Amino acid sequence: MSGGSRQPGRTVTSKVLALLGAFDAAHPQLTLTDLARRSGVPLSTAHRLVAELEEWQALSRDADGRLRVGLRLWELGQLAPSRLVSLAHPWLQELFVTTGENVHLAVRDGLEVLYVDKVYGRRAVPIVSRTGGRLPMHPTGVGKALLAYEPDWFVKSYLARKLERPTPHTITEPGRLARELAAVRAQGYAFTYEEMTLGSCSAAAPILVDGRAVAAVGIVVSSRRARELPRLIDPLRNAAAGIAKASPPSSGSGP
Amino acid sequence: MSGGSRQPGRTVTSKVLALLGAFDAAHPQLTLTDLARRSGVPLSTAHRLVAELEEWQALSRDADGRLRVGLRLWELGQLAPSRLVSLAHPWLQELFVTTGENVHLAVRDGLEVLYVDKVYGRRAVPIVSRTGGRLPMHPTGVGKALLAYEPDWFVKSYLARKLERPTPHTITEPGRLARELAAVRAQGYAFTYEEMTLGSCSAAAPILVDGRAVAAVGIVVSSRRARELPRLIDPLRNAAAGIAKASPPSSGSGP
Repeated sequence: MSGGSRQPGRTVTSKVLALLGAFDAAHPQLTLTDLARRSGVPLSTAHRLVAELEEWQALSRDADGRLRVGLRLWELGQLAPSRLVSLAHPWLQELFVTTGENVHLAVRDGLEVLYVDKVYGRRAVPIVSRTGGRLPMHPTGVGKALLAYEPDWFVKSYLARKLERPTPHTITEPGRLARELAAVRAQGYAFTYEEMTLGSCSAAAPILVDGRAVAAVGIVVSSRRARELPRLIDPLRNAAAGIAKASPPSSGSGP
Repeated sequence: MSGGSRQPGRTVTSKVLALLGAFDAAHPQLTLTDLARRSGVPLSTAHRLVAELEEWQALSRDADGRLRVGLRLWELGQLAPSRLVSLAHPWLQELFVTTGENVHLAVRDGLEVLYVDKVYGRRAVPIVSRTGGRLPMHPTGVGKALLAYEPDWFVKSYLARKLERPTPHTITEPGRLARELAAVRAQGYAFTYEEMTLGSCSAAAPILVDGRAVAAVGIVVSSRRARELPRLIDPLRNAAAGIAKASPPSSGSGP
């Protein structure tokens, strides 16, 4: 039995990781009590472990005493595999400059899209994606662009679940979604119309390396400007092709 | 005695953190043996703890079997305090578009500058700074811009150390550096001429909130273009002022 665990079989490491994992986009700040509750670590143990995590700057305290992820973890996270993001960033930048729109880059992680980079200016509309954030695949442009290139068995199992429906316009009917994905594959790009957020539309293109969509690049615009989506296709596909060409065959996962 | 520690007094948490802390910009990938050696954790313990860290995606393995920081830590790191970066990013973006140059944002952490954001394009010259990277203060534009606004006691203790000298042009003589910092404070911006890297020059401006430099924004250009640095001052100071105006008084640390 390691580390004075009260819960037999639960290692200290797993408790430390449970404490860290209690933070997410919806809970970036937690009191010690909430942290203990969310992680399932007893309060006294949490108190002791948090002190060590704070000392190392893995966690830090806000002015109001609540805990949050610390600078040191941010710094450490920057060492995660980032070849794709480094390669892609200048292309996103150029796409932002060419189109004047917010641009983002996403990869598939499990059944979600994970936003790994975002280029945005002061004038463009804010978008719901957040670097490090996750969204379901079927209601997002980048998600459809990625899902369309997954093997059949993956798509089938994706569609077999109960699909989230963030707006009344989200396509959740499996047959319709399958046809939509076939169209994306045929065209090489995806659109969404208020499927993730009311008031927003998007266009996205997959980054294809050896026939596999390793990531997708997307743009979100206000739905008042939905008719402008087609003019974004060429710049998007250009950027996607440029990134694909610069990517080594093995790159593809990780931010 | 917790977690089967062989080194009395060393907790499991401290060993987990030592394993994570063994990774840095110079060592983004490590074999298990190197990781154990660098962290001072016995190999068998390292083996066991790494398995737990891998399972949680805190660490991941490259194709060659070496370990590196995993996607999950990157994701977690994105939750670190980032108000300043979020606020500043659109301004950096605009600065990049206006000037066509690589732009970066840095804060002081200890005796170093920590680069917390960077906007770069395909055509601009690559710069030595890396998001999440650190450099000494005195040879960098952002570092001088930050150091110039630190209290006297801090500057004195900074200058009292043996100062790094990455190039023959680095200013390390304390008297000269102190005069340089006084000039930066008087002018409100800093220049460097091949002081960090041969072939590169930079210009930087502090982001002043309540008289304190909470961060600095900088641009690096090839030294062949050193005569163009003055034209970057106005855009840099504009961006710095815009970010400062948008910053709440308490923001200032963290990426």
